[in-house]
Amino acid sequence: MRLTRYFLPVLKETPSEAQIASHRLMLRAGLIKQASAGIYSWLPLGYKVLKRIEQIVHEEQIRAGHIPMLMPTLQSADLWRESGRYDDYGQEMLRITDRHGRDMLYGPTNEELITDIFRSHVNSYKDLPLTLYHIQWKFRDEVRPRFGVMRGREFYMKDGYNFDLTKEDALHAYNRHLVSYLRSYERMGLQAIPMRADGGPIGGDYTHEFLVLAETGESEVFYDSEITDMKFGDRAVDYDSVDQCQAVLEEFTSRYARTDETHEEALFNDQVPEARRRSARGIEVGQIFYFGTKYSEAMGATVVTPDGGRVPVHMGSHGIGVSRLLGAIIEASHDEKGIIWPEGVTPFHCGIVNLKQGDAAADAACESLYAALTAKGLEPLYDDRAERAGAKFATMDLIGLPWRITVGPRGLEKGVVELTSRRTGESEEMSPEAAVDRIAQIYS
Amino acid sequence: MRLTRYFLPVLKETPSEAQIASHRLMLRAGLIKQASAGIYSWLPLGYKVLKRIEQIVHEEQIRAGHIPMLMPTLQSADLWRESGRYDDYGQEMLRITDRHGRDMLYGPTNEELITDIFRSHVNSYKDLPLTLYHIQWKFRDEVRPRFGVMRGREFYMKDGYNFDLTKEDALHAYNRHLVSYLRSYERMGLQAIPMRADGGPIGGDYTHEFLVLAETGESEVFYDSEITDMKFGDRAVDYDSVDQCQAVLEEFTSRYARTDETHEEALFNDQVPEARRRSARGIEVGQIFYFGTKYSEAMGATVVTPDGGRVPVHMGSHGIGVSRLLGAIIEASHDEKGIIWPEGVTPFHCGIVNLKQGDAAADAACESLYAALTAKGLEPLYDDRAERAGAKFATMDLIGLPWRITVGPRGLEKGVVELTSRRTGESEEMSPEAAVDRIAQIYS
Repeated sequence: MRLTRYFLPVLKETPSEAQIASHRLMLRAGLIKQASAGIYSWLPLGYKVLKRIEQIVHEEQIRAGHIPMLMPTLQSADLWRESGRYDDYGQEMLRITDRHGRDMLYGPTNEELITDIFRSHVNSYKDLPLTLYHIQWKFRDEVRPRFGVMRGREFYMKDGYNFDLTKEDALHAYNRHLVSYLRSYERMGLQAIPMRADGGPIGGDYTHEFLVLAETGESEVFYDSEITDMKFGDRAVDYDSVDQCQAVLEEFTSRYARTDETHEEALFNDQVPEARRRSARGIEVGQIFYFGTKYSEAMGATVVTPDGGRVPVHMGSHGIGVSRLLGAIIEASHDEKGIIWPEGVTPFHCGIVNLKQGDAAADAACESLYAALTAKGLEPLYDDRAERAGAKFATMDLIGLPWRITVGPRGLEKGVVELTSRRTGESEEMSPEAAVDRIAQIYS
Repeated sequence: MRLTRYFLPVLKETPSEAQIASHRLMLRAGLIKQASAGIYSWLPLGYKVLKRIEQIVHEEQIRAGHIPMLMPTLQSADLWRESGRYDDYGQEMLRITDRHGRDMLYGPTNEELITDIFRSHVNSYKDLPLTLYHIQWKFRDEVRPRFGVMRGREFYMKDGYNFDLTKEDALHAYNRHLVSYLRSYERMGLQAIPMRADGGPIGGDYTHEFLVLAETGESEVFYDSEITDMKFGDRAVDYDSVDQCQAVLEEFTSRYARTDETHEEALFNDQVPEARRRSARGIEVGQIFYFGTKYSEAMGATVVTPDGGRVPVHMGSHGIGVSRLLGAIIEASHDEKGIIWPEGVTPFHCGIVNLKQGDAAADAACESLYAALTAKGLEPLYDDRAERAGAKFATMDLIGLPWRITVGPRGLEKGVVELTSRRTGESEEMSPEAAVDRIAQIYS
């Protein structure tokens, strides 16, 4: 993309309403614009990152054998009356009346709707196991929306639901989700630690939250410092293998890691040597639940068993906060100049800065780099504006592309351009061809 | 995808509420399930088609130089009061009050919101031309939702907005949209005819609707029969060329083609020789508008001109009904057995039917076909159920994959499988390798 043909409205001044870094930077870098309280438009650059995150979530859910579908944003209140949650949910549920006076709501979650789909179409244990998921906009009418997309009202979330014949099978589904979540967050450049959590209004004894450590996190967390050394890496896990998934769960949840909701000081002191005890703040970016037959019993979601009986299915629900992740990633990865996108979610693979727009050699070199990168399936953002170098660098630093190629007449006389890492600030001179190869290798 | 691991709830009986073929077939083939009146869940197979259509729309909009972004589903009523449409829109607008008593609405369209984004960030003619678009869920509180996704309440739509300095530039944007729409529909296997339309509540003198001819269409249409012979084909159009885009507009709109809203019988008789006069029914699948400064004046969306003045921008809006297109495609392409997907939007590239599940040779041949197709980047749907051949054929015919490979012990003894076209019903025997190559070639 050429910047002169793009829509990237960066702000010079920091908007006064933004209290935390991610909110400030998302506004300043032209990622979002507030439409109304807690509701945002995703400007082109922000939309691209949102799509990259969504794509990672899709790929990892499909890899785990979970099936994508899509439920609507608005739901009938009747289903929520069946489960008993219509009255329980309180003022965070946005209630709507349509022109015929029917009670509806903007879905904050989808247990009822997916259970209704299941009971309408599935009748036999032979159709299990089954995990369906979708990524859809949801609404939670927060009393005080703040922190930008971190605590907005309209938010984009992946929620998946497993249906299994037995508790044992459902716990395997739980473990599959844990594995797929670890993979997803790592691909986004995030370390998200599974912590024992509280069931809350969805219910459930088995539940873990995934938290990204960040000073601005809403939760206080307590953990064994060994946890931050753990990596999922690129190990191969067979999602059909109960043992392999269970082993990952045990590996990643055996050490003490809890939010303040479930923290037990005595246990913490007992289990973790003092030198490894840590307390910090964390941002919740996902949660997995096993809640058994809570919804299937209330809503009659049963299957015929091998011996001809009929039992309610065991269920769980599993969420990743897709829009919130942009905020979390920025909280975990920025500096005083702006955002630093991890390669896995960057909106463009690299920037091209032309130090002297209008100079024939510089223009030609930039066009040639642009074409070579594009031919390799990469998306560069070429700053082809007639601006000073300083302004171009400031924009690139603010929007946080991980790599920048700087092209100027002086370098070209020597046959070189400069490749700069946004994260380290380190630059290296090399031929344009070598820069293209390096970038291609980084993303391969 | 292996069918035993998928969720494809086909119905044996035709649901009584469905009055038209596409609605019946979408329910029977397990594409959708009604969640409440005029609101649908997209089951896995329907979701895949929805995504294919969305992807074509994205690719063609980006090719035309239009920039993707995303606006929220809920909007503040205040913006609609500024444009004067809040009171005009009537009961089809779903009005919502949040917990603080603020008036909101579920966006039926986005002229106000995009104009607000524009006026906040764009100040100079130098930032023009600019066309932004998004694909997002919208809501129209139809008094009598019917025909499934064709006239639903919650619907998925692409809407794009151009901002230009002059009427001339805005008409070029109009033409770009016309070209990109012709390309998009053809890629979906549809012939959608641009017809002179009525501006309706959005306003505008220049407007064309795109209609797909189908018996169940809601509009009566009148046209010169030469139009149905026209094809856009794979011609190269330079979207920056005013002349090239104008030529396409003239070529595709010079012949008489109007809906009943704009039809003039005398003109029709005068312009079209009797033998070429046709009247039929059509389904509207898109509309383009140029409406000048209607919103920019009302909302103060102005830019500085080259001579230092300030003028309201010229705008247009351009929509494609993404979810509705599934219905339109099925209306245009089905038979008594089921759906016939065009290759461009099919949820899976081909089906594999194993005539004798459990037979070692048949199972191995199917697995090998599955692997070979997948290795070529294709997605097959393998019916690996322990069902009779007749039931497998019926399912494949119902869900409408354009190509089917049938594998059985008898054919394998001769070294052949059978490749069948869903559209023509014609079958051909060939080696498994040849079948894979043929499928790959069809989709290349």
